[in-house]
Amino acid sequence: MKDDLVEKLMDEVMRKMGSTEAPAAPAAEKPAAKAAPKACNLTEFVGTAIGHTVGLVIANVDPLLHEKMNIDRKYRSIGIVGARTGAGPHIFAADEAVKATNSEVVLIELPRDTEGGGGHGSLILFGAEDVSDARRAVEVTLSELNRTFGDVYGTPAGHLEFQYTARASHALHKAFGAPLGQAFGITVGAPAAIGVLMADTAAKAATVVPVGYASPGNGGTSHSNEVIFMFTGDSGAVRQAIIAAREVGKQVLSTLDGAEIVSSTKPYI
Amino acid sequence: MKDDLVEKLMDEVMRKMGSTEAPAAPAAEKPAAKAAPKACNLTEFVGTAIGHTVGLVIANVDPLLHEKMNIDRKYRSIGIVGARTGAGPHIFAADEAVKATNSEVVLIELPRDTEGGGGHGSLILFGAEDVSDARRAVEVTLSELNRTFGDVYGTPAGHLEFQYTARASHALHKAFGAPLGQAFGITVGAPAAIGVLMADTAAKAATVVPVGYASPGNGGTSHSNEVIFMFTGDSGAVRQAIIAAREVGKQVLSTLDGAEIVSSTKPYI
Amino acid sequence: MKDDLVEKLMDEVMRKMGSTEAPAAPAAEKPAAKAAPKACNLTEFVGTAIGHTVGLVIANVDPLLHEKMNIDRKYRSIGIVGARTGAGPHIFAADEAVKATNSEVVLIELPRDTEGGGGHGSLILFGAEDVSDARRAVEVTLSELNRTFGDVYGTPAGHLEFQYTARASHALHKAFGAPLGQAFGITVGAPAAIGVLMADTAAKAATVVPVGYASPGNGGTSHSNEVIFMFTGDSGAVRQAIIAAREVGKQVLSTLDGAEIVSSTKPYI
Repeated sequence: MKDDLVEKLMDEVMRKMGSTEAPAAPAAEKPAAKAAPKACNLTEFVGTAIGHTVGLVIANVDPLLHEKMNIDRKYRSIGIVGARTGAGPHIFAADEAVKATNSEVVLIELPRDTEGGGGHGSLILFGAEDVSDARRAVEVTLSELNRTFGDVYGTPAGHLEFQYTARASHALHKAFGAPLGQAFGITVGAPAAIGVLMADTAAKAATVVPVGYASPGNGGTSHSNEVIFMFTGDSGAVRQAIIAAREVGKQVLSTLDGAEIVSSTKPYI
Repeated sequence: MKDDLVEKLMDEVMRKMGSTEAPAAPAAEKPAAKAAPKACNLTEFVGTAIGHTVGLVIANVDPLLHEKMNIDRKYRSIGIVGARTGAGPHIFAADEAVKATNSEVVLIELPRDTEGGGGHGSLILFGAEDVSDARRAVEVTLSELNRTFGDVYGTPAGHLEFQYTARASHALHKAFGAPLGQAFGITVGAPAAIGVLMADTAAKAATVVPVGYASPGNGGTSHSNEVIFMFTGDSGAVRQAIIAAREVGKQVLSTLDGAEIVSSTKPYI
Repeated sequence: MKDDLVEKLMDEVMRKMGSTEAPAAPAAEKPAAKAAPKACNLTEFVGTAIGHTVGLVIANVDPLLHEKMNIDRKYRSIGIVGARTGAGPHIFAADEAVKATNSEVVLIELPRDTEGGGGHGSLILFGAEDVSDARRAVEVTLSELNRTFGDVYGTPAGHLEFQYTARASHALHKAFGAPLGQAFGITVGAPAAIGVLMADTAAKAATVVPVGYASPGNGGTSHSNEVIFMFTGDSGAVRQAIIAAREVGKQVLSTLDGAEIVSSTKPYI
């Protein structure tokens, strides 16, 4: 009976507190904590994914609205991916989408979010001349997220994130300046101090070439509590740099809170 | 007994976790969850309202401070409205206040807040030559908030907001560029992806004229996870556009979390 | 038995909700609420402190990374202090560190954080030619934090912060423009409306000279929901201004939530 009561209470509490989940433990992992999402019959609806992510598509954006949207007017159809939690996972997923579909990434913006955590959410718009291409880009992005959340690790004190691709495409070029066709990786640590140390660890662990460095006040964050290090190099070196940084990051994050540091889904690097 | 215990625990938990309430369920709605606010005898204190909103007045701002405050020096008296949760509700409420009183809105700033949610808080300063006018502007703003929170809807996954006025005045002109004396409305969706779709829905549902479009990285948000669409038109068209967007927004927000989507107070549009 | 159950539940709840603690009640105060942080054997690790603060040191920053970091290249060794919660406490603590060590503050950045609260976290980098100096600067900063959190007060509705030094040094000069060698103080209130009133109270309570005024959209915040007032004057006047503002701030903050307003550690002003 006592355990029933505990569970009932936890459910109730998590329900009321739902919007404050930690970045690396998004809603999808806590089925008991939230009401079941509802189905949606709108033709514009594509799907949802981890991180309070939603995918949508608009076949013909209203022309007067289009003028206000700060995107190239040649695309009539847009695909939309937005999330409360996660920027790196979504940008790397979008990169796979532009490789796989006849679409372009026309906008990447990073709200300061993660629902009380230290990082970003995201808003990514794909442009296409045909609505089926825009929809397909959104579908690919959503389907990649389970993988790209694999090296996102969170505790109550902060989070770590690592991403890797053997061949960067246009989304990574637009968001981070990644050289097209090259291996590319990022390390992200919050609080930002951990990100500084991980950047140095990555830079020293293998022969990589720094592409960018973003901190709370510079280089592209939206005042998130993160340092993001972006680098290229040969494929083995980029992975080696990430693995070394990940090892160090986990050790330091553990000193702030003893919660076990686990992947949001399943590590892929 | 068991229910007593549940309630006692919930009170205690909500107490400790108080600062993380979702945007559309501000403190005023959860009397059991918080300690009773205390009275205040300061002459500068005007009152409080939903959204952790406080209203204050200063009869004569210190002249040396005034120089640093980035506001027009001709006003000796200022009224102050600030909130942890809510920007649209406060700006539309302030618009009623400038219509009803002998005051001007001299500053509107939007912190990135909502206590872990995806939106803004607000800081609004009214200027007046007489302290009673400044106080009256704050009083009117506070009294309007219960109405202007009526079309704010939140769940653990995000929020929707809609505002409408038949006749925009100086606060809406200053904050959003609304044409004076015209009908004016906004749709707001978080995560921002939902706001994009609602903007398109609103633009297509009636003959409205886009006035502005704000997203996490452009157009006036403070990196909130929102897209805000602002439009004018005839009064019926503005309302019709809002109602259509609201219907779509609710359906999409429901796909992220099954929590019932309810008004923070009572819908007015 | 009932109390045991309550405690067990609270522990479990606080555990899951750990990342949403209010700014003035950082992790260090709630030992039962979190798993025990782990030890760290990395040579770069210096220590942790209140506010989810971590201190690190890098003896020789990787040269290619250094070029991207936006800091003066003459420093080979850097000390790093980062926190999820707290900017003022860390900057005033860093000011003691630069007085006490052979190091300089080369970067101060303020993420928008406090884990769902209305304020900032921080990232502070010390530069030194020798790693032992960088390490010492970090150690001094960490050791000062218990004191500098003394006049940080939080409730579920917002927070107040006050800092004072009899003699400002280079960290305060860099962060706030404080005149070197002079007495210097700040008042901080969230929601920002409270900060406006405290600024006026401080300015009128004693003969102080305003140095700066920061609000959600101007003067140096990262869109936090705070107004920060910075001032100099003779030592007694600066303290008197702070004490008057603190008294007023506590009264107003109490009107939003009845939670008792207590120091994060122990008041020092």
